[in-house]
Amino acid sequence: MIDSLIQKIKETKAPICVGVDTDHSYVPNADTTDFKSVAKSILDFNKGIIDAICDIAPSVKVQAAYYEKYGYHGVKTFYKTIEYAKKCGLIVIADIKRNDIGSTAQAYSDGYLGKADLGGQMLSAFDADFITVNGYLGTDGIAPFAQDCKKYNKGMFILIKTSNPSSGEFQDLVFEGKALYEHMADKVQQWGSETIGKYGYSQIGGVVGATYAKQAQALREKYKNMFFLVPGYGAQGAGAQDIAVNFDKNGMGAIVNNSRGILLAYKKEKYAGMDYKSAARAATLDMREDLLGAFDSMGINI
Amino acid sequence: MIDSLIQKIKETKAPICVGVDTDHSYVPNADTTDFKSVAKSILDFNKGIIDAICDIAPSVKVQAAYYEKYGYHGVKTFYKTIEYAKKCGLIVIADIKRNDIGSTAQAYSDGYLGKADLGGQMLSAFDADFITVNGYLGTDGIAPFAQDCKKYNKGMFILIKTSNPSSGEFQDLVFEGKALYEHMADKVQQWGSETIGKYGYSQIGGVVGATYAKQAQALREKYKNMFFLVPGYGAQGAGAQDIAVNFDKNGMGAIVNNSRGILLAYKKEKYAGMDYKSAARAATLDMREDLLGAFDSMGINI
Repeated sequence: MIDSLIQKIKETKAPICVGVDTDHSYVPNADTTDFKSVAKSILDFNKGIIDAICDIAPSVKVQAAYYEKYGYHGVKTFYKTIEYAKKCGLIVIADIKRNDIGSTAQAYSDGYLGKADLGGQMLSAFDADFITVNGYLGTDGIAPFAQDCKKYNKGMFILIKTSNPSSGEFQDLVFEGKALYEHMADKVQQWGSETIGKYGYSQIGGVVGATYAKQAQALREKYKNMFFLVPGYGAQGAGAQDIAVNFDKNGMGAIVNNSRGILLAYKKEKYAGMDYKSAARAATLDMREDLLGAFDSMGINI
Repeated sequence: MIDSLIQKIKETKAPICVGVDTDHSYVPNADTTDFKSVAKSILDFNKGIIDAICDIAPSVKVQAAYYEKYGYHGVKTFYKTIEYAKKCGLIVIADIKRNDIGSTAQAYSDGYLGKADLGGQMLSAFDADFITVNGYLGTDGIAPFAQDCKKYNKGMFILIKTSNPSSGEFQDLVFEGKALYEHMADKVQQWGSETIGKYGYSQIGGVVGATYAKQAQALREKYKNMFFLVPGYGAQGAGAQDIAVNFDKNGMGAIVNNSRGILLAYKKEKYAGMDYKSAARAATLDMREDLLGAFDSMGINI
């Protein structure tokens, strides 16, 4: 799946992941009667976003929290959003940050990457292309996901250095000359060493926040086979120059997420008069231009 | 909510949490036609378990993974299980191990502890009493949950030292003379310092695996106000003596989870001839006796 993602990035020249993290307050005229109706409004909005960007972006990231907030009706919309995005040819990252002991991690993996075995009938629950995972529990909490990445041609991104202000409280603690996030990166590299695709990147990558450019640059230099999912562009404060350090010389090796900057573009002065779909498309194209400009100035040729 | 949990433990003299982590393979004659029917079978099974134990145990822990495995139909059963258990007077721990940056953590918190604001209408999605959380992102990933614990009288358990074999890979790394899990415990104590209830325990507790008794004992001695959720009894290999170190002299300070040992009791020789409900009840009473025996031998008077 990492090869498919890279292939689509090459086609679109846009290492962008549109974050479909849709709070109901983002949806113009959402029906807020109850969870069922709000979930329906969000699904309609998401389909509009997906239609607007599916030919210019390779992928979407769907954040589970913004669906679980609306209960099982919200989770149905999460499922339908993934299904619709895949139908439109997008690569789907389910941003779930799951983590648990081995047997339970297997149940999560069955749900999001693999299949449940119902009396010999193998059924996919969410069937994402990639998921995000938290590695605090170590190898046996990761192994079920890693095995299913191989078995079902999927991928995952493990939290290394997150984009939030307090990420350093634990992640920057130094053990034997190396920060915790670097220990995590070492393990991510190890876990992914058997599934390196034709472009040189592994199915198992890392989440590296755009808000910590210095750390990202060092990680990029050290882990040549690790693909990064990079949150933090736009609303969280990172600019294109901060982002560009995550890429190799060919503009590969990372994909940059933008959620609110695209979903809420229609509220910005810059896109005044556009409906939410046109604004989302324009914002995606502007982000692409912004990134490619930074690439140019840094000698990166995508 | 921590006071309510402790009150119920005092009433039942059973610091036990029945883990309703129901894989469909545990359910006798489950209807495996599709996700909808299997989710219905699991809900019926869960109701039977809850009916069988609700007068002898204070709480249940519902593991999200075993519901998400069956898609949104499974998540509906997760919701209905929580609802039914609360109706039967049990305290419900939603074992979700969620974690994310601040704004997204708030969405999770709205869903599991608090409420979503739908145009002024405040609606609860899952309305658990407690949740489990992974603290790898630091304070700003915890704050939204902590605030909602206060606002809605809820509680949470943050992963400190997990029960799985490889938990030490990161959790035991020593930074500045202290293992990562001890750094985590320091933060958990700090995060919970403002919400200590009438029995001396905070709304914000920790997950401490029964399989690491030595570490648990040291944590118990150091963090007097921290309530522990203790997984690992039974199927994962920890016995009652390992468990007892998690408690204070009054048999408070911890609650011990048992999932497969109770859900699958009907398959054990010891409970042969019993239906799954009677076997679950007998296994819960046996676990209580086992724990109280260990308490006795260690001078703990519950």
